[in-house]
Amino acid sequence: MIYKKLNMITKNNLSLGVDIGGTKVSAGVINKKGNIIDSLNCATPNSNPKAVKDTIIDLIVTLMKKHEVDSIGIGAAGWVNLEGSKIFFSPHLSWRNELLKKNLEKIINREIFIFNDADAAGWAEFKFGAGLNCTHLVCLTLGTGIGGSIILNGKLERGKFGVAGECGHQVILPQGQLCECGNKGCLEQYASGNALGREARELAKSNSPVAQELLKSVNNKISLITGHTVTSLAKKGDPASIELVEDIGKWLGLGLANVASILDPDKFIIGGGLSSAGDLLLIPTKRSFYRNLTGRGFRPAATISLAYFGPNSGIVGAADLARESLLSNNK
Amino acid sequence: MIYKKLNMITKNNLSLGVDIGGTKVSAGVINKKGNIIDSLNCATPNSNPKAVKDTIIDLIVTLMKKHEVDSIGIGAAGWVNLEGSKIFFSPHLSWRNELLKKNLEKIINREIFIFNDADAAGWAEFKFGAGLNCTHLVCLTLGTGIGGSIILNGKLERGKFGVAGECGHQVILPQGQLCECGNKGCLEQYASGNALGREARELAKSNSPVAQELLKSVNNKISLITGHTVTSLAKKGDPASIELVEDIGKWLGLGLANVASILDPDKFIIGGGLSSAGDLLLIPTKRSFYRNLTGRGFRPAATISLAYFGPNSGIVGAADLARESLLSNNK
Repeated sequence: MIYKKLNMITKNNLSLGVDIGGTKVSAGVINKKGNIIDSLNCATPNSNPKAVKDTIIDLIVTLMKKHEVDSIGIGAAGWVNLEGSKIFFSPHLSWRNELLKKNLEKIINREIFIFNDADAAGWAEFKFGAGLNCTHLVCLTLGTGIGGSIILNGKLERGKFGVAGECGHQVILPQGQLCECGNKGCLEQYASGNALGREARELAKSNSPVAQELLKSVNNKISLITGHTVTSLAKKGDPASIELVEDIGKWLGLGLANVASILDPDKFIIGGGLSSAGDLLLIPTKRSFYRNLTGRGFRPAATISLAYFGPNSGIVGAADLARESLLSNNK
Repeated sequence: MIYKKLNMITKNNLSLGVDIGGTKVSAGVINKKGNIIDSLNCATPNSNPKAVKDTIIDLIVTLMKKHEVDSIGIGAAGWVNLEGSKIFFSPHLSWRNELLKKNLEKIINREIFIFNDADAAGWAEFKFGAGLNCTHLVCLTLGTGIGGSIILNGKLERGKFGVAGECGHQVILPQGQLCECGNKGCLEQYASGNALGREARELAKSNSPVAQELLKSVNNKISLITGHTVTSLAKKGDPASIELVEDIGKWLGLGLANVASILDPDKFIIGGGLSSAGDLLLIPTKRSFYRNLTGRGFRPAATISLAYFGPNSGIVGAADLARESLLSNNK
């Protein structure tokens, strides 16, 4: 297979980024300043690797017909090996040792770079967002689960085998809630959007008077309560929802303090759907972080801020990582 | 102050390393293969920064009279800032924002490089010991507390501010045992030599029949039981002591799995006094690690092994880090 590497020198220097999440596949054409020139998205086909692949190809081909792109990058909601050739597994998609790169390249006939979706999102924040001027950055994406990315000395750190940054799967409560990963008590079970929904449903089931606004918002159909329900109500001032978001912040702050004990970054960035709670989440997170930071008072502490990008961080980051990977390959 | 930088080119290329621990100060002259040419040690003076400084100077001067050394490095049991100019604090010594580098250089009249003692120990393993051929290495030193060092892509990773690697201060049991760092439930409280001693004393106090060998070994003076008592008895086959060491392994394996979720290294190395328990510690640690590793079965897993160096890792690593720092400064 011959890659059109010389495309790197096109005047516009555009890169195509795809973000494959559990519910949505997005694609965009990104310039080197991180601006989105064009974008598309559609629902993720359910539980069928081939259908997911076809969707990705459709989006890429459609955008490539309209734009001359130099590089193509994909951020996938899965654990990607260091070479980007294989997705070990995906908790929320049906991939198991999936050779996505090879399968896509066969059809697209271009080199395709594959990354973890949270790595792509974190890279976008580092290059163009809330992580500008940082050298040691940890970004967590709080959604269905918790995605994480680590940037050290200005470089994405993927570990020896490619799966570094899974800060959401640190166990913070032995024998706690069962996690999709097979462990019990992962941070993800206490500080993700799913965790927020679960805790709210538990509260609603308890018939506590404090849960009345939650119940009203779903016409008493408790199973309809999600993390999004809670963040929306919290922003409208519902005290119980505010408390539930605070509880997330307490766990999250502890999780960040643990990461700081190991990595000592200068900044944490919190993104993903749950971060839409804004200060309702950020303030209790910071309080818990500073309370749990080992050596506090005798060390400079990392700052914590909300992500700059919303749902587009994945396509921006994947496109930019692909641009950098191609440059580095051509050196 | 004029440093004799040109000394770098001496034929023997010797470096002097000092290791300052809570109980002992050691110093050695090390060649570039990591071999110890000469060494000295003495007890750490108690709780007086000036006395500690004088001891360090005595050891350095004594060795410098006998050997022409190119560089001097110190591994200190404290949290050192990135520049090596200041020790933020030391849990087991009396330093608080101590300007050790400046104070020593005034007297020695040579550039002195200061590192965290666990970073020095980990570096020795990476360059000359159990971490040869690794690129992503995490070393834990289990003694009074837990020291940690992280090597990524072949470089010591010290974080943004210098205090990365404190894996022993991740909270693994919220509201658990109070730690010297001010938190509750740090790994250090469950997997250090001190933790082993504490648990053994608790067992002995309980008057359980299983504690008879422990009690006999200290003539019923329970306060004399230390981690060392337990590892010695475990190696002699005392079932209760073996169980206590196993319990340490269970917690340690969980802590390592948490670090692997974040860093995805290729190897963990376990050193320090507690590692003298050998397989009695290593086997339960591995079992717990693999049981708690997120994504197990769908990712390559780090290996775990015992340290190659004993108590000399600190002087070897500090000397070699100083050699590399001086080379890098002179580039």
